[in-house]
Amino acid sequence: MSEADIIREIFAPLTAEAPGADDLRDDAALLEKGYVVTKDLMVAGVHFLPKDPLDLVARKLLRVNLSDLAAKGAKPVGYVLGCVWPAGTKREAIELFAKGLHEDQETYRMALYGGDTVVHRTKTAPLTLSATFFGTPPRTGVTRRSGASPGDDLYVSGVIGDAGLGLAALKKEIKVTPVDKASLASRYHLPEPRLSFGAAIAGLATATIDVSDGLIADAKQLADASGLHAQIEAIAIPRSSAAAVWIAAQKNRWRALAQLSSFGDDYELLFSAPPSMRRSVTVAAKASRTDVARIGTLSKGEGVSLLDDRNQEIAVPKLGFDHFK
Amino acid sequence: MSEADIIREIFAPLTAEAPGADDLRDDAALLEKGYVVTKDLMVAGVHFLPKDPLDLVARKLLRVNLSDLAAKGAKPVGYVLGCVWPAGTKREAIELFAKGLHEDQETYRMALYGGDTVVHRTKTAPLTLSATFFGTPPRTGVTRRSGASPGDDLYVSGVIGDAGLGLAALKKEIKVTPVDKASLASRYHLPEPRLSFGAAIAGLATATIDVSDGLIADAKQLADASGLHAQIEAIAIPRSSAAAVWIAAQKNRWRALAQLSSFGDDYELLFSAPPSMRRSVTVAAKASRTDVARIGTLSKGEGVSLLDDRNQEIAVPKLGFDHFK
Repeated sequence: MSEADIIREIFAPLTAEAPGADDLRDDAALLEKGYVVTKDLMVAGVHFLPKDPLDLVARKLLRVNLSDLAAKGAKPVGYVLGCVWPAGTKREAIELFAKGLHEDQETYRMALYGGDTVVHRTKTAPLTLSATFFGTPPRTGVTRRSGASPGDDLYVSGVIGDAGLGLAALKKEIKVTPVDKASLASRYHLPEPRLSFGAAIAGLATATIDVSDGLIADAKQLADASGLHAQIEAIAIPRSSAAAVWIAAQKNRWRALAQLSSFGDDYELLFSAPPSMRRSVTVAAKASRTDVARIGTLSKGEGVSLLDDRNQEIAVPKLGFDHFK
Repeated sequence: MSEADIIREIFAPLTAEAPGADDLRDDAALLEKGYVVTKDLMVAGVHFLPKDPLDLVARKLLRVNLSDLAAKGAKPVGYVLGCVWPAGTKREAIELFAKGLHEDQETYRMALYGGDTVVHRTKTAPLTLSATFFGTPPRTGVTRRSGASPGDDLYVSGVIGDAGLGLAALKKEIKVTPVDKASLASRYHLPEPRLSFGAAIAGLATATIDVSDGLIADAKQLADASGLHAQIEAIAIPRSSAAAVWIAAQKNRWRALAQLSSFGDDYELLFSAPPSMRRSVTVAAKASRTDVARIGTLSKGEGVSLLDDRNQEIAVPKLGFDHFK
């Protein structure tokens, strides 16, 4: 039983065919009067480390939700917040959390509209956070995951794998230099929602998704929703210099690239566009000062394949993160 | 540090004075394009018993949120859902939960728009649920908690205390007949959101709130928000025959009435209206087939007092439920 199965089989029938719910195939819904709505949970020990500073946790909560709005080209308006604190949480902890919210509200210009605050019965129950975000859709309308056509190019913004390496470094599972550790950990703690780039490609892209479960897993989601096969050239996957150093130190570099593309928490935009739009994509990237890389293509078929420089398929260590596996 | 303090001092500044957020003084916010938004969390062991059947838990989750919409006279449109399941949750459990959602979606005519599903790292972490609801406001506009004037009457719908007695009976803290236990437990598991009555009084009421933390605590919330004092005549508090039997068996009946008014989970509507509206309130109640009782008045001053039949103040055992106390 995978998370996708549960959503498709158990929850999707509950949309009662409301058009804006899109059968729960997307991270965001569209309310009739003109709001894009998205909801992401964050749970201590699952989405963040229990000892992560609470201002950073707050900012990540906002940013992972903003990333969903960015993928739909939407402009943030505000959010409602749910917090379940472990028993015995001190006022100072909540203040630090609110400080983080305030800092990113200033950056991304939006307001808190309401919410609910609860305390767990025990001290060991994990801090659990929920945010529901509202944004206004782009004039061109919302791009879904399902709009790609055979022959479309596949693109991704920024670099891939830094957040996953940052988490591994924080957990001391990998060894990196102190400078690289700081830079990678910062990518894990503070993803950068691609709001202006998302708005810039809203009219060009045929399908969009943000990379939260890993590049390959999310490419599969986009391909599945569009009824197509996604082919990704490993060599084209954009990575930081810190990630390049880590890859170079691995025995099998293709396998390392596959691992990089299977980490989650990138919060970059993955999207498709027809080859006729290549120049427009470049212009959109420059206008919003965002790096973008063309990493593959979509074709008839299903699933996702990752290819090395001899067009051989690379085995993927695990297909993203699935809560139910 | 009370929950109210945390909201007022730490979170209210984050509204950035967005008008629809009303400084977080209300359970519901108003989005500019015309949606009433509300969010309520439910956590196993806090808001429901860990062994409660999951279809009932699902229906209660919907109903406590619908009750917030009812208090604002709003009509439900849909919701987004967040679920954090304990590790090892079976598919059947999630299906039972979804069955409950489906049942009440049919009753209250609304759709699921999206959400997020996560699994805890451990089997002992509590099932944690979050729902954000959207409704359309009444033509007369949304009534806030803060609109009451000195001299206004105070009313409450339905009966008070049954849900609290139901919980006590389920936990075997009190002894009641099997018939009463079934009826009281059902009020605990399945509150009845007063949607049609809430819509009917939208143009008449000066301030509205739903009773979730206990009648006295929520009367205090309404009085505080309106800058007034609330006076409640204990004898006028509406109670069921099962509650009457329980009261009659208590040593101090006034104290028992105070206890009844301090339980939570009633999800009745508490509201104020000027004496000139008494007839209109009765008409609205009849039209929506809802019982309503006039239980007190609002006056200059602050706080809330509960009076016996000799106008003596009754000591209140605890002022509602506060997660932070």
